[in-house]
Amino acid sequence: MRIGEFQKMIERLYLSKDSARGLGKSFMWFAEEVGELAEALRGGGKKELESEFADVLAWLSTLASMEGVDLERAAGKYARGCPVCKETPCACREKI
Amino acid sequence: MRIGEFQKMIERLYLSKDSARGLGKSFMWFAEEVGELAEALRGGGKKELESEFADVLAWLSTLASMEGVDLERAAGKYARGCPVCKETPCACREKI
Repeated sequence: MRIGEFQKMIERLYLSKDSARGLGKSFMWFAEEVGELAEALRGGGKKELESEFADVLAWLSTLASMEGVDLERAAGKYARGCPVCKETPCACREKI
Repeated sequence: MRIGEFQKMIERLYLSKDSARGLGKSFMWFAEEVGELAEALRGGGKKELESEFADVLAWLSTLASMEGVDLERAAGKYARGCPVCKETPCACREKI
């Protein structure tokens, strides 16, 4: 599935509801799912992990739609190597 | 671009480095990007927003790769309507 198709699918499912709820409250839902992902990463099974990754992706997608951001176009940021050092693999040096 | 292609692209760029850093510290980077997305949502321009969405997507993808989760397969969770109410659009009722 293309990133754009996923975004459209999530729009059909949730955009009307999420738009009515508003950006701040929808961000709270996204943050809640990020917390659930952390929990699953700490000790969830593979199925739970997969499910939490899907949920964070879905909420990220709905936030993008609410702001008129095309997620597939945005993803192109990484298409020409690391956006900072321009290398593949990335050769940036970080403290951690 | 397919979700799977994006995940592979991010793996080529960052997986070796992110794996060496480990899950906990990589999650810190992801969380930092979630914070930057919140900041951009509060008042960033369109270009900044697009960039922050891409960064959160990239870190989400690398965490999935580190855990052996196929993000495109995971995204299939939403392919048959809302996973809770089974409707399109979603008809679940929430407090907010």
